[in-house]
Amino acid sequence: MLTDIEIAQQASIRPISEVAAVIGVPEKYQEQYGKNKAKIDYNLLREVDTTPGKLVLVTAINPTPAGEGKTTTTVGLADAMNRIGKKTVVALREPSLGPVFGIKGGAAGGGYAQVVPMEDINLHFTGDFHAIGAANNLLAALLDAHIHNGNELGIDVRKITWKRAVDMNDRQLRHIVCGLGGKADGVPREDGFDITVASEIMAVFCLASSITDLKERLGRIVVGYTFDDAPVTAHDLHAEGALAALLKDALKPNLVQTLEGTPAFIHGGPFANIAHGCNSIMATRMALALGDYAITEAGFGADLGAEKFLDIKCRLTGIRPDAVVVVATVRALKSHGGTAPDALNTEDLVALEAGLPNLLQHVENITQVYGLPCVVAINAFPTDTPAELALIENKCRELGVNVALSEVWARGGAGGEELACEVVRLCEQPNDFTFAYELEGGIADKIEAIARRVYHADGVDIAPKAQKEIARLESLGFSSMPVCMAKTQYSFSDNASLKGAPRGFRITIREVRVSAGAGFIVALTGSIMTMPGLGKSPAAFKIDVDETGRITGLF
Amino acid sequence: MLTDIEIAQQASIRPISEVAAVIGVPEKYQEQYGKNKAKIDYNLLREVDTTPGKLVLVTAINPTPAGEGKTTTTVGLADAMNRIGKKTVVALREPSLGPVFGIKGGAAGGGYAQVVPMEDINLHFTGDFHAIGAANNLLAALLDAHIHNGNELGIDVRKITWKRAVDMNDRQLRHIVCGLGGKADGVPREDGFDITVASEIMAVFCLASSITDLKERLGRIVVGYTFDDAPVTAHDLHAEGALAALLKDALKPNLVQTLEGTPAFIHGGPFANIAHGCNSIMATRMALALGDYAITEAGFGADLGAEKFLDIKCRLTGIRPDAVVVVATVRALKSHGGTAPDALNTEDLVALEAGLPNLLQHVENITQVYGLPCVVAINAFPTDTPAELALIENKCRELGVNVALSEVWARGGAGGEELACEVVRLCEQPNDFTFAYELEGGIADKIEAIARRVYHADGVDIAPKAQKEIARLESLGFSSMPVCMAKTQYSFSDNASLKGAPRGFRITIREVRVSAGAGFIVALTGSIMTMPGLGKSPAAFKIDVDETGRITGLF
Repeated sequence: MLTDIEIAQQASIRPISEVAAVIGVPEKYQEQYGKNKAKIDYNLLREVDTTPGKLVLVTAINPTPAGEGKTTTTVGLADAMNRIGKKTVVALREPSLGPVFGIKGGAAGGGYAQVVPMEDINLHFTGDFHAIGAANNLLAALLDAHIHNGNELGIDVRKITWKRAVDMNDRQLRHIVCGLGGKADGVPREDGFDITVASEIMAVFCLASSITDLKERLGRIVVGYTFDDAPVTAHDLHAEGALAALLKDALKPNLVQTLEGTPAFIHGGPFANIAHGCNSIMATRMALALGDYAITEAGFGADLGAEKFLDIKCRLTGIRPDAVVVVATVRALKSHGGTAPDALNTEDLVALEAGLPNLLQHVENITQVYGLPCVVAINAFPTDTPAELALIENKCRELGVNVALSEVWARGGAGGEELACEVVRLCEQPNDFTFAYELEGGIADKIEAIARRVYHADGVDIAPKAQKEIARLESLGFSSMPVCMAKTQYSFSDNASLKGAPRGFRITIREVRVSAGAGFIVALTGSIMTMPGLGKSPAAFKIDVDETGRITGLF
Repeated sequence: MLTDIEIAQQASIRPISEVAAVIGVPEKYQEQYGKNKAKIDYNLLREVDTTPGKLVLVTAINPTPAGEGKTTTTVGLADAMNRIGKKTVVALREPSLGPVFGIKGGAAGGGYAQVVPMEDINLHFTGDFHAIGAANNLLAALLDAHIHNGNELGIDVRKITWKRAVDMNDRQLRHIVCGLGGKADGVPREDGFDITVASEIMAVFCLASSITDLKERLGRIVVGYTFDDAPVTAHDLHAEGALAALLKDALKPNLVQTLEGTPAFIHGGPFANIAHGCNSIMATRMALALGDYAITEAGFGADLGAEKFLDIKCRLTGIRPDAVVVVATVRALKSHGGTAPDALNTEDLVALEAGLPNLLQHVENITQVYGLPCVVAINAFPTDTPAELALIENKCRELGVNVALSEVWARGGAGGEELACEVVRLCEQPNDFTFAYELEGGIADKIEAIARRVYHADGVDIAPKAQKEIARLESLGFSSMPVCMAKTQYSFSDNASLKGAPRGFRITIREVRVSAGAGFIVALTGSIMTMPGLGKSPAAFKIDVDETGRITGLF
């Protein structure tokens, strides 16, 4: 069996200018980055009149650590849509360098449902993440230079919330003391690095609808507090112009293609816990403008990814989905039903049926809470048995749940035509989209609404420290923002071991922060790792490049 | 009078594919990055048979802090060469983001002798420096992960020499303690960040002649020492394959153009004190392969820049220059003759004549020590008086020194035709190129040779700590490498206030290091700043970008 990189390197890739021409991107808006990547100028959205297509969101059940193939399904579905004659464009997140060198596994789909050139996409791509890291670190340098050069704003170094960033798994930088060395070398203080995808600049970047909006959001970022507890913003440090200058090319969505030549925008990639976990709104808008259908995905399971896509991204940007695909796998449903991790390759119909409530609850959330048409995509694995696949399909049909088998990993777009037909059908249905909560009311009310309506918790407990912070943020005028939940992706609850569709639990909020530039309140249910580490034998050991520039060992 | 960015933005820039076509780059080796930048595949050098052109090195007298217009002269000379019918290509260093946001002043030439698009070149360009920073930091992460995950190699955390890097002026990161936070968060130790251009990866990148050579050099990098004082290399950490994968696209030289359409390779940019201060050998080779003449520059004055270009870069890569241009300005010569910084705009023939020995000693070094033809280029400033310009010209002619006035800043290539004709004439002369020192003998012998022959010092004093390190490096087998001197650029001596052509001084070596991947020994005459800081009103405050993506305030 071929590996992903072998399949990708054997593919015949069309010049990206041809791909752009198919969806009618005028030549003046194309900026090639090598032969197979292009940035598309955002001025196209202002200057060219287009009719937005239908928007399809791909989300998933609560995953296993291996993931459930959301990107693979998204890519394969788009290929299938084009096969059945629907002009379709994909919008995905960009991968981070951290996982590429850390654990085996990229973020460009898999098997015969990939985006290419996968090596470039998984390495620097067009440099967006480096630009975001540089903007993050320029803001940090301006902050510390301000303090070093007299601290006119009266910033309390014990209350700085802005961290530095690097796009690398580097646990050594989680907690540092900087500004050591003496009087000429800054002011000693505690500091730390996040991986670049966890930077608020990433979230800002993905929600910015124009350069002007980007600058305004950047200016609103809170970097810390004064001795008098007043927030200090990037605007106070005169930073937003230079930060936006660093980001102005990155903000142009990147166009690549799938193995079958479907146009794919891959742009931005914020964390799906402390941030909203979706590709940039620029990329989504461009996919909608240029395709009759745009297929996009959201991070983790639907309780985190779809919830934030719908309640944060749709609310803040005005886009609306026409249909939702919930990806499920036999393996993950068996895991929800009690199968041990090392037994997932063995048929187990009892555990599979016991795990189904996880899927059904996600479907019900989409249809009942958000009022959107929904179809289950069973992402087939080579180890699935016919009886297992049949069980899911039959149970769904019994309950009136739309369902389709997806074999895109093994067969590319040809394996996704049934799903594609179902998606087209659902997009024609009227829908009654509503948010899970309204913006009025306090921060705690919104957390409570998400916990009860989406997670099906009995209620929310807010730790005293978080209560105090909520009061402070509300007094600073941040109460009418949506809430971004940071929670385990493995369960509807905040306890990773509660599988299936648990009941009778409460959600505990331990910490609350504001991402004032992104425009949301982050509510953390526990400590969230924002800087991974490298293991004893990281993937980096196997990666190599030969004299002609060909990469090996990437996957 | 227009600013540099205004001149650059008013220029009509040709599509880069046209520029590439003029010098015969086959389409398959061109990788466009936007419309006005391209990477040229290094496989061209292996696969296309070309006759190398003549190589011209542009260097300078000891500068004032404002610089003497070396890049401006290099660009204008190349434009002038093309005006007089000689197919000429430029090779320059890439600018760092640090100075762009720190102090006013980029590194893309000035006036009517610039490379464009200057905003892109001064911001991320094609991402090379980010790739180099990522490689630097991946090596650091692999090093610390090795220690954290059991430290099989027995690395002594007190003897780690590898630092982290960021392409930003950020004094706060000069000295840090990392690995804090507890058992899961690494091993506490002292650490620090250099600006990316000071990373040894940058020097390695600029000296690598192929991917294979790059990997071998990366593998040889010494990152620290074990408890038993044995060196630990990047190869010991299994790092070179992944590092090279990060650098494989960056290693392709970047092609842009001057305001007059002359092809310009801009690629790599190592420090000119702790490293060798020249653009990549890939770019120099490509300029030589594609032009009948290649014009390149070296950092700082000729005592540092030309010395390292000739004794390190030429020696390690086998290239040979055909002529050397020494750039001088009235202002800097007056400064060498005793004029105060605030009086440099006033005519002062006495100080000017008193400062001439600085210029003449550089010329004599080039012609007598290195055996190369040389011409002085007087880079005219608007404040120069006719009497001042005449004085330099007349004195040079009296002494048999070739000299030409260069007015390229004000007039572009048309202002450099006299210089171009002189350069063409010199390139036809036979030359007798020799190095200033041979590789045999100890490290101290080589330092002594540079100090006596190039700096005209009476001798060298080596501090006890440096003596001990020399003994250690020689015992480890590093004695036959060339020496890279880290010294002030403002004087022939190691004392910035000794202007002109000082005599009766000695050079003090305080510290010695090995850059085993780059392939040289670094001898430091004092503490060299490898991480600048931002001032109270950094240039970043004025930089902005408008809704259409147009940058302002960059210069």
